[in-house]
Amino acid sequence: MTECIFCKIAQGEIPAEIVYENEDVVVFRDLNPQAPIHLLAIPRVHIASMNDLDNAHAALAGKLLLAAKTVAAQEGIADSGYRVVMNCGEGAGQTVFHIHLHILGGRPFSWPPG
Amino acid sequence: MTECIFCKIAQGEIPAEIVYENEDVVVFRDLNPQAPIHLLAIPRVHIASMNDLDNAHAALAGKLLLAAKTVAAQEGIADSGYRVVMNCGEGAGQTVFHIHLHILGGRPFSWPPG
Repeated sequence: MTECIFCKIAQGEIPAEIVYENEDVVVFRDLNPQAPIHLLAIPRVHIASMNDLDNAHAALAGKLLLAAKTVAAQEGIADSGYRVVMNCGEGAGQTVFHIHLHILGGRPFSWPPG
Repeated sequence: MTECIFCKIAQGEIPAEIVYENEDVVVFRDLNPQAPIHLLAIPRVHIASMNDLDNAHAALAGKLLLAAKTVAAQEGIADSGYRVVMNCGEGAGQTVFHIHLHILGGRPFSWPPG
């Protein structure tokens, strides 16, 4: 039994507003949106953080970026622009230890990115 | 002849402080660092933006995230934490149209990410 909330979302055991999914990836709305569009793309398999990626995960990790492109088009932010962010470790703001790519759009963005 | 500055860096035609490279990816220091550690990971092949990724790029795109893990360890920020960011489009702050993953570490990060 996993206690990982994002594993449970991927398995349909916890509700989320899923906007896209395929065999490998699920994308759903962040519950604390920081932009008009704020989505999280996760792999279905549990990988705790970027530090836990290995070479065998290359295609899977890339599919998170491909999913960002897909949902950006779907949400109407492909042309206006969007930012994707992944935090590794509590020191960088990672709060759920199942890798997730933040996809934000629908407003201007400042620099630095936090 | 490409006019893309990041293609030229990948080809060694423009100097950059390269900290890691392999067959597919080059990582170098950002000239306008926004954190004590601020690196850019790029693919050697020219892909203008996230909107130009297609399914055939999955493994290559993932190798940018794998490179982030690798250089985070190399730069001593794997444990303290790091944030990776990719902007798509001028509206999100993309200034060079060759995809690049910002890798930032060595300081605390705020939320939202810009």
